[in-house]
Amino acid sequence: MPSEFALIDRYFKRPTRHTLLGVGDDGALIAPTSGCELVISTDMLVEGTHFLADTDPEALGWKCLAVNVSDMAAMGALPRWVTLGITVPPAPTFGWLDGFSRGFFACANEFGIDLIGGDTTRGPRAFCVTILGEAEPGKALRRSGARVGDGIWISGRPGCAALGLAHVQGRIELPEPRLADCLAALHRPQPRVALGLALRSLATAAIDVSDGLLADLGHILEQSAVAARLQIPDLPAAGLERDCLLAGGDDYELLFTAAVSGPRIAALAADLQLPLTRIGEIVAAAPGELVLVDADGKDITPARRGFDHFG
Amino acid sequence: MPSEFALIDRYFKRPTRHTLLGVGDDGALIAPTSGCELVISTDMLVEGTHFLADTDPEALGWKCLAVNVSDMAAMGALPRWVTLGITVPPAPTFGWLDGFSRGFFACANEFGIDLIGGDTTRGPRAFCVTILGEAEPGKALRRSGARVGDGIWISGRPGCAALGLAHVQGRIELPEPRLADCLAALHRPQPRVALGLALRSLATAAIDVSDGLLADLGHILEQSAVAARLQIPDLPAAGLERDCLLAGGDDYELLFTAAVSGPRIAALAADLQLPLTRIGEIVAAAPGELVLVDADGKDITPARRGFDHFG
Repeated sequence: MPSEFALIDRYFKRPTRHTLLGVGDDGALIAPTSGCELVISTDMLVEGTHFLADTDPEALGWKCLAVNVSDMAAMGALPRWVTLGITVPPAPTFGWLDGFSRGFFACANEFGIDLIGGDTTRGPRAFCVTILGEAEPGKALRRSGARVGDGIWISGRPGCAALGLAHVQGRIELPEPRLADCLAALHRPQPRVALGLALRSLATAAIDVSDGLLADLGHILEQSAVAARLQIPDLPAAGLERDCLLAGGDDYELLFTAAVSGPRIAALAADLQLPLTRIGEIVAAAPGELVLVDADGKDITPARRGFDHFG
Repeated sequence: MPSEFALIDRYFKRPTRHTLLGVGDDGALIAPTSGCELVISTDMLVEGTHFLADTDPEALGWKCLAVNVSDMAAMGALPRWVTLGITVPPAPTFGWLDGFSRGFFACANEFGIDLIGGDTTRGPRAFCVTILGEAEPGKALRRSGARVGDGIWISGRPGCAALGLAHVQGRIELPEPRLADCLAALHRPQPRVALGLALRSLATAAIDVSDGLLADLGHILEQSAVAARLQIPDLPAAGLERDCLLAGGDDYELLFTAAVSGPRIAALAADLQLPLTRIGEIVAAAPGELVLVDADGKDITPARRGFDHFG
């Protein structure tokens, strides 16, 4: 078994682009852009809870970072630096870490992120990613800014990742080419960084849909102390995929509220070549209340909103 | 079992002092002091590797943060913000997390650190702490700055924590009051933040002694491409404690090199009421070479330098 330092050198030491001092000292050293605010987010990913033992390590490496990049997107921040804590069993290590680090750095390179530090130790397989991004002062997107009258929008085609998971778990069988799309959404999610940056001057609140749309919209409603009315027929999904969108998770599309006009959002969607769909609006009702209405205007609100690892 | 959000609210949401937006959004938001550099460090602590299942949770909560504060001290940085990733088994949770968070916040309050984010999930017990500190531009202490002729210094009474561990593990039996000192060093290490800040204008290189003096001095020698000669009789420990100091670990004292005079360091030691002991000097020899000499000037260099979780 190679030493901790050899593992780090081999798999996790790469040239940095905008870092004063990277992996290898008691701490890394960065010089944030003068006047910027910093956005920081941490995620733990644990085998058996967040991923299965037989998950492809390269896909996991990508996803491990991508889900944190998505948090930066949801805050309207530019992702810049990341640290990675790893615990891995004594064996097998070589091939597995090789694939994992390839996926991780593929994502880091795509979004211009420097890996600046970490810790590699022995234990049940788990990862802890802490990401840092830069935001313009006062412009970070929060969950608390939604106001009555705002439209509620969602990017992309959420629900796809949960469908892919259902297929992998043998609960459904997806036909090609839908299967390929859903597996890509599950294994190689594309965080919406460009959208998040564009929304800084357009959105009143934003969140990424990682726990399912109902749960994540619920967070916006609670923190903004407002209510929402969702038009089910307007959701960019139908049938089982719609159920996945509402209560599933793992999607990493952005859900946002905005007071600006539809055409302005449509222009942004065209610019980014990314569907942006208006699915409802913020209304004056009991804070936190979330009503789903069908094509006939009938209330079809379900009892349960989402996913909780401790539920 | 309470939900993830209830756990976070109950145990890990506290008022912050110098943070724009803390726990509860997709990311936390901070405004670093204009012109400062940031120092960042990450540690994973895993049950069975870094701590035992029956470790007192309050002591663990303190130590979990303190060892990261020590990394800031070793860089000459002021610790300011921290994120905490936790995986815990489904049960027992209440009492355990209560103790853990009490210890964690005791350390955070002592050093003026805001907990700004984290993640709580189910799994084998492990913690991931990422700490951020502020450093004056160009003044952070690195491992790479030691030069031939520098004195080599160490703070406090390292070796004590490893002795305490040996007692806890039943390998030795310590008498009181020595036992109390060693258990305190093991369970409630005191990171040397004030020393680290004072060393910014005095030391040429620094590191905290977490892997044992020989291993950690080795890091300085490699990164500075210099050699060292240690005077064993000058070490602030003797007998078994000296062995613990050399090859043990878990001490979190600072080891540093400095070109300034002894009296200047003695004045600092008096100011801080902390022993600072000169134990050798940086010499011109093969880079990385570390020679230990006894009272007669005889070379007694051991074969093995320290501790590695993958060794």
